[in-house]
Amino acid sequence: MKVVIVGGVAAGPKAASRIIRMMPNADITIVEKDLFLSYAGCGLPYYVSGEIKEQRELMETSAGVVRDATFFLHVKNLKVKNHTEALEIDRKNKRVHVKSVATGDKAWLHYDKLVLATGASPVIPPIPGVDKKNVFTLHGVHDAEGIKKVLAQHKAKDVVIIGGGLIGVEATEALATHGCRVTIVEMLPQILNMLDWEIARLVENYVETNGVRVMTGTKAIALENRGETDDIVTHVRTDKGDLPADIVILAIGVRPNVSLAQKAGLTIGEKTGAIQVDDHMRTSDPDIYAAGDCVECIDRLTGQPCYVPLGSTANKQGRVAAVNICGGNEVFPGVLGSSICKVFDYCAARTGLTERAAKDLGYELITAMVPGVDRAHYMPKSKILLMKIVADKNTGRLLGVQVTGPGEGAKRVDVAATAITAGMTLDQLAHLDLSYAPPYASAMDNLITAANVARNKRDGFMIGIPAEAVQRKIQNGEDFVFLDVRTPNEYEQVHLPKSTLIPLGALRRRLSEIPRDKEVITYCAISLRGYEASLILRAAGFTDVKVLDGGIAMWPFDREIP
Amino acid sequence: MKVVIVGGVAAGPKAASRIIRMMPNADITIVEKDLFLSYAGCGLPYYVSGEIKEQRELMETSAGVVRDATFFLHVKNLKVKNHTEALEIDRKNKRVHVKSVATGDKAWLHYDKLVLATGASPVIPPIPGVDKKNVFTLHGVHDAEGIKKVLAQHKAKDVVIIGGGLIGVEATEALATHGCRVTIVEMLPQILNMLDWEIARLVENYVETNGVRVMTGTKAIALENRGETDDIVTHVRTDKGDLPADIVILAIGVRPNVSLAQKAGLTIGEKTGAIQVDDHMRTSDPDIYAAGDCVECIDRLTGQPCYVPLGSTANKQGRVAAVNICGGNEVFPGVLGSSICKVFDYCAARTGLTERAAKDLGYELITAMVPGVDRAHYMPKSKILLMKIVADKNTGRLLGVQVTGPGEGAKRVDVAATAITAGMTLDQLAHLDLSYAPPYASAMDNLITAANVARNKRDGFMIGIPAEAVQRKIQNGEDFVFLDVRTPNEYEQVHLPKSTLIPLGALRRRLSEIPRDKEVITYCAISLRGYEASLILRAAGFTDVKVLDGGIAMWPFDREIP
Repeated sequence: MKVVIVGGVAAGPKAASRIIRMMPNADITIVEKDLFLSYAGCGLPYYVSGEIKEQRELMETSAGVVRDATFFLHVKNLKVKNHTEALEIDRKNKRVHVKSVATGDKAWLHYDKLVLATGASPVIPPIPGVDKKNVFTLHGVHDAEGIKKVLAQHKAKDVVIIGGGLIGVEATEALATHGCRVTIVEMLPQILNMLDWEIARLVENYVETNGVRVMTGTKAIALENRGETDDIVTHVRTDKGDLPADIVILAIGVRPNVSLAQKAGLTIGEKTGAIQVDDHMRTSDPDIYAAGDCVECIDRLTGQPCYVPLGSTANKQGRVAAVNICGGNEVFPGVLGSSICKVFDYCAARTGLTERAAKDLGYELITAMVPGVDRAHYMPKSKILLMKIVADKNTGRLLGVQVTGPGEGAKRVDVAATAITAGMTLDQLAHLDLSYAPPYASAMDNLITAANVARNKRDGFMIGIPAEAVQRKIQNGEDFVFLDVRTPNEYEQVHLPKSTLIPLGALRRRLSEIPRDKEVITYCAISLRGYEASLILRAAGFTDVKVLDGGIAMWPFDREIP
Repeated sequence: MKVVIVGGVAAGPKAASRIIRMMPNADITIVEKDLFLSYAGCGLPYYVSGEIKEQRELMETSAGVVRDATFFLHVKNLKVKNHTEALEIDRKNKRVHVKSVATGDKAWLHYDKLVLATGASPVIPPIPGVDKKNVFTLHGVHDAEGIKKVLAQHKAKDVVIIGGGLIGVEATEALATHGCRVTIVEMLPQILNMLDWEIARLVENYVETNGVRVMTGTKAIALENRGETDDIVTHVRTDKGDLPADIVILAIGVRPNVSLAQKAGLTIGEKTGAIQVDDHMRTSDPDIYAAGDCVECIDRLTGQPCYVPLGSTANKQGRVAAVNICGGNEVFPGVLGSSICKVFDYCAARTGLTERAAKDLGYELITAMVPGVDRAHYMPKSKILLMKIVADKNTGRLLGVQVTGPGEGAKRVDVAATAITAGMTLDQLAHLDLSYAPPYASAMDNLITAANVARNKRDGFMIGIPAEAVQRKIQNGEDFVFLDVRTPNEYEQVHLPKSTLIPLGALRRRLSEIPRDKEVITYCAISLRGYEASLILRAAGFTDVKVLDGGIAMWPFDREIP
């Protein structure tokens, strides 16, 4: 069996390794246009930041062996043609035309099965100046080296990152670590478009406290030079003013590399522009498989095609393709859009649907905003985690979870991903037997509390109101009681605009201070006391009582600090 | 509606708070025999260690308010009778007889519904000397204060902990933090009986590197005084010799407090000795509910009664009892035996069934031992996590996961708990869309790799052999090839007894060095290269090739360090 694999970074080597394990006598050739193989592209921001010291570390196995052509041949028995470009697929004769980048020599490689793992390329915006020397993407090792070189010359004070997605945000931390003044320029109304607006806004507020400027709803128009040498950018012109720039990083996103597949007449997904595959990772040609950042996935919740290029998915798909090539029967069931990134000491993650996406799909929803500490609150290392949970109002099914904050968010997102995959309801989520000890969780884990808050809303015990709606009331000068039920000491430190303080413990005896004919919106730090207050008021006959979703902890607007 | 709740620590206050939220006019009284209410018992080891500075912190809400009787009355509208003992239940007249501990005054409290949340008490072993001054359990605040007092007098050098369960192990770290020489005396062949032997042994090996002595299979016979004052213990006599002791901590386990229920004629579980409840948390008397450490649970996997007292379960059960008391219909579906503890920088955790428990239940099993880093291996903060996975051979269903090591284990155990709850198979586990970014996970998460290793074993690609079986072969002087396929440099640092080195990259050209008529057992650091080596050997015609389960990383016996 002859197998040719085009692409030597993630899905390609994974497929090759798995095939040779299942069929030790297979004749496998990996074709990779770059010099480097199997490097850890996701690690580049941490190489730029200096957390990872040596380029070599991104190329090594966990045992410290560099994954070069020799490694693949001797250890894995895989032939590698690196620095070799695949030009064309001759499907009729089952062969691939390749060209050595160094020598220009061309050759045809025959295959019984072909795997396309051609990956993705960064999107370059169609604006002037993107070809200048100090403009980078963060896609390959050479990008990272280029950025590090400018940094090493002590020339970079101002960095403009165009695009506030996962890579833009990861790059932000990397550059800020070097003392650069970083500005993120994002065309959309928010960074991290994988999140709902108000969660993204919490991340924006946080990165701004780390000295980063975030300009959302802002369009980069041109990368300009106003200095002596014309080959570098000195300023980024945007529709909201000009920004000085010693380095510009383009992080608009990536686009699947499909030209090889397209030229060969393989089906390309209409919505995604990525190679269409069936659940066996087979393209429209049964002898050609595809995997990784070049293919489209199916969203497990919606059944719709989606494009979520990630190393985790690429590895799974490479393995599935391999098993099926070897005569097995393995299905890749799709993805949930699980995504996570670290920015300074915050994580930002989601799995499943955002509220926005779920609404667009026509779901009726229950949502809850649930801040809480990530382990027993009396443990000195406990940190706050800000969670949003989205469920189907009619079935109670969990649809999505988003988290941010310094607390341990990856754990909760992964549990949520598992629960969503299983089709669990809020009731089932609330009764999961998650591990508990004070260094790891509270007795009621954040996810369980979130499920309970959502159930309280579903069952009418809690009537929530989103921060945005409250902010609108304030801005419109509407007449309502914004009731803070924390302690005077807490209130003095920080509170929300237009709010009145009556501590929870005093509320029952001070009910007469609250007008009965007005809407009352209660809040506290995390809206647990706010919830209790709302129940006291309702029990006392107040008819229009709501609780601010997520309390002060998840208030995305300005707070008042006397 | 009059509700009386006996027990004011975890399940009791939770039930009370929930009832008052659902029925604001309910008349609720909590009866607690201790002075303290709602203190965080699970936090005691961290108070002893000094990580938690003030006793007060264990009594406070996350907003810093002490949960005393005033708090419960003013904030929650709950009456509290603390320092009050419940003597007897008069079921016919629906009333509870209570006595003030301070004054001895007695009274009858009428109820419409009664909740028993009487908790558990530490088991005191029937040996002489347990009543001496420097013998403690670690159950209440007074125990922690007692231990801290002795420590403050600088008198404690030698600490003997009798019992190596969760509390014993947590106490070990707390005392070692104070510079004490700690010995754990455990009657069973292993500590942490919630784990399989070889995982527990890895924890034992680790705590011993932290200067702790672990004596398993050892029975404490008497706590003796050989000094001047007779009221303290100076030595612990065991069947394996005597141990000096300045402090003795009894951590044998806890027993449910059921005397009140028993006297009232409520059904007690035969196997567990805990109060039997239905899935609505109702005892055999429909007007009496029970929740928390005093009740038995149903194991969600086996359907059998079990006794796993934990604060997390207590809170959930308290809420379920409350909902049902208020006329709702909420089911507590049982537990998975999820347990976790921290000891120095290791976590030790499990969910679902151990291999031992599953075998006892008659399952045919696939198990895999899978060590791996807990995030991208090139991230400097990556740490190893040692995982064991247990699945049903016939259905492929995941039955249990155990972890230990310095890596992030809680996350994987919680995902596993969710997957087990959902009845997921190894195939489904392998395709979970878990969140991936280098600071949080590898592209192939530990759980996904574990599922794949187990699938490779199921499908015959990998033939594993447990460390115990190999150790037996070595001890019996059996003739086999124990093949280390790492690098010479790795081999020089540490290797397993009786092993031969042929690095993986050289294996194909050095096949002739390996006798074809002998059993070959391959290994490396984590058994990934060992697995590749076994495939190379099998492809080359070797017929009896196995891979050491878990590699050196999970070898529980002595290693050779030249």
